[in-house]
Amino acid sequence: MSEEPDRTTRRFLTPPVRQVHAHLRERMETLGMAVRVDAAGNLRGVWQPANAAGKRLLTGSHIDTVPDAGAYDGVLGVVLALEWVELARESKAPYAVEVIAFSEEEGVRFGVPFLGSRAVAGRFDTSLLTLKDGDGRSLEDVLRGFDLDPQQMSEAEVKDDAIGFVEVHIEQGPVLEAEELSVAAVTGVVGQSRLALEFAGQANHAGTTPMKLRHDALAGAAEWIGAVERLALQTDGLVATVGKIAASPNAGNVIAGTARLTLDVRHAHDAIRLGSVEELIESANGIAARRGLAVQSTKSLDQPAVSMDERLTAFLTESIVAEGHPGKQMFSGAGHDAMVMAARVPTAMLFLRSPGGVSHNPAETVRIEDAEAALHVGRRFLERLAAEFR
Amino acid sequence: MSEEPDRTTRRFLTPPVRQVHAHLRERMETLGMAVRVDAAGNLRGVWQPANAAGKRLLTGSHIDTVPDAGAYDGVLGVVLALEWVELARESKAPYAVEVIAFSEEEGVRFGVPFLGSRAVAGRFDTSLLTLKDGDGRSLEDVLRGFDLDPQQMSEAEVKDDAIGFVEVHIEQGPVLEAEELSVAAVTGVVGQSRLALEFAGQANHAGTTPMKLRHDALAGAAEWIGAVERLALQTDGLVATVGKIAASPNAGNVIAGTARLTLDVRHAHDAIRLGSVEELIESANGIAARRGLAVQSTKSLDQPAVSMDERLTAFLTESIVAEGHPGKQMFSGAGHDAMVMAARVPTAMLFLRSPGGVSHNPAETVRIEDAEAALHVGRRFLERLAAEFR
Repeated sequence: MSEEPDRTTRRFLTPPVRQVHAHLRERMETLGMAVRVDAAGNLRGVWQPANAAGKRLLTGSHIDTVPDAGAYDGVLGVVLALEWVELARESKAPYAVEVIAFSEEEGVRFGVPFLGSRAVAGRFDTSLLTLKDGDGRSLEDVLRGFDLDPQQMSEAEVKDDAIGFVEVHIEQGPVLEAEELSVAAVTGVVGQSRLALEFAGQANHAGTTPMKLRHDALAGAAEWIGAVERLALQTDGLVATVGKIAASPNAGNVIAGTARLTLDVRHAHDAIRLGSVEELIESANGIAARRGLAVQSTKSLDQPAVSMDERLTAFLTESIVAEGHPGKQMFSGAGHDAMVMAARVPTAMLFLRSPGGVSHNPAETVRIEDAEAALHVGRRFLERLAAEFR
Repeated sequence: MSEEPDRTTRRFLTPPVRQVHAHLRERMETLGMAVRVDAAGNLRGVWQPANAAGKRLLTGSHIDTVPDAGAYDGVLGVVLALEWVELARESKAPYAVEVIAFSEEEGVRFGVPFLGSRAVAGRFDTSLLTLKDGDGRSLEDVLRGFDLDPQQMSEAEVKDDAIGFVEVHIEQGPVLEAEELSVAAVTGVVGQSRLALEFAGQANHAGTTPMKLRHDALAGAAEWIGAVERLALQTDGLVATVGKIAASPNAGNVIAGTARLTLDVRHAHDAIRLGSVEELIESANGIAARRGLAVQSTKSLDQPAVSMDERLTAFLTESIVAEGHPGKQMFSGAGHDAMVMAARVPTAMLFLRSPGGVSHNPAETVRIEDAEAALHVGRRFLERLAAEFR
């Protein structure tokens, strides 16, 4: 179910999404669920028990992928959500369960992520409809081409009967593997700053310019990359990354006149993140001043941290412990639909170990024992939630 | 006299070279010189005095340019050589003076430099004739298209009547300006090593990968750039440059999996240069080992230092001092035709201050007072040489 023959690439509302919908619809209907596709292209199935207390639990994840993706990012959370429905049915849960296969999370097709969960959380700004994809088609046009009506977007929003939302997702990082853990409860999603910096010095001849008369922009940038790494290593929970760099004129025998680079800083606490960004900008200014360089920085993102719901997260953690695992809690370093949903309903998230920390890559995988743990934890969680209705 | 309307670009044997030849030929003939173009496209004019002792002094520089060049790199040495002929004539020098306008020094058209001086020095390997330019034309084809006969290449070589070769050239660096000097005698051209390095780590998510679990190739490369700069600052006369860098996948939110970069190392003493290269490779290996990275280095150039002729260089230095300037001697950090000629005949070189250290750039310039100093030094030098014949 891919746009490309030899690898998995499934962007928002491309033809293979219809195959995914047909497959999931069949499984949902087999489970006795009522199925619909909302105006944002999210496939939604509701299991409604006879003894329902008029409330519903939301669960699910996304079905779009990055180019050349693995098999588990997003999809695993949808598949496990269907298993949770089966568990809810077996245990005669006193609430409905709605499984949402979010249409868009990765931001690949329109450059803006979370299109599916924005609609469900009531955070879909209609100005998004004018976004264009790589072929110049507008989001509105793409929605209509999938037989959806953008006018009905508000119908996608959760109703007041929602107990909350729970997302199961692979960690996409190496922490659980390093600690030899199967699963963890996510307590929040880190805040994120993104910046672009340019060091400007003087391009000059690599042979005729003595070291002490140089204004080498790349040497300045390299010193600063070291400062970025040092600060992050010294600051608990901080990650800071320079992932992109370009020197100019970028010739082996010419001293670099300019070096442009990016900075990505993330932390669970916004004050620490913002303070670190300020410290790194000051560090860049100091390096530039000492070396006779100019430096400019531009902030391109300042996204606050999001906390998960304490009560639902406690239920998840208790369920993890009850299954014999350490009650690991952790922040997510990446954004997820759960981050968007948390703005609208109580939200919790369960991470599964990512072998090798690998994701966004065909080598992405999941251990069977960890998927089994996620099911057992899910059964405990559904029971713990049911107890609230007794 | 350029290939391009709004800037100076004059590659080897392109149409504007015919204009340059016509211009120089007219000036040479006005001075009573016998003019020819040799098989490598070098324009050569010989002033032959009546009282000649059967010996000749060679002088000159190149007339090709880099793209978007300045007005002085190479050309100044040809123009001043013609003035030296005038001075030789006035002083009734007892030797002939041959002015050579070398056809190729920059290596732009065929990727190999010094095509003109190689022929004059008898170092033109006929395998060079199969080199192709950017349009797929062979060097042989280009020579024939300029009405030259590659079979006659050996006719270009200097004869045994050569006293030596003297080149006047702009410094293309900031040393003379920093020391407030007009001119300097060049004692040699530095040796040069070029290497390509690749640090390989693990590309990973910038948000989900804790600092201590990273194998960041760009962070490793940055640390090494610092080590390169430190060693060069600590080693007298050493210049070491990382001018080119590329990270992969080069995305702001992905830890770099690989970083490729270049190293350019130059020093007057080959042992110091080669020892420094070894030390920097060891440093790269140490950084890689500590960070769990792999590193590979490939040497692409290992060019020994070349010394100028002691006697002619002493004559030049005495002439500089006699004109009231400090007797500055310096190594050239860049290659020149004089470096190639030194393999065949006693060779000396005179540098003129480069304001701002700027070259290979339309902003390249020369102070009138420094050109005047070069003429006065030239007159002294020609007289000092004449004294050898009395």
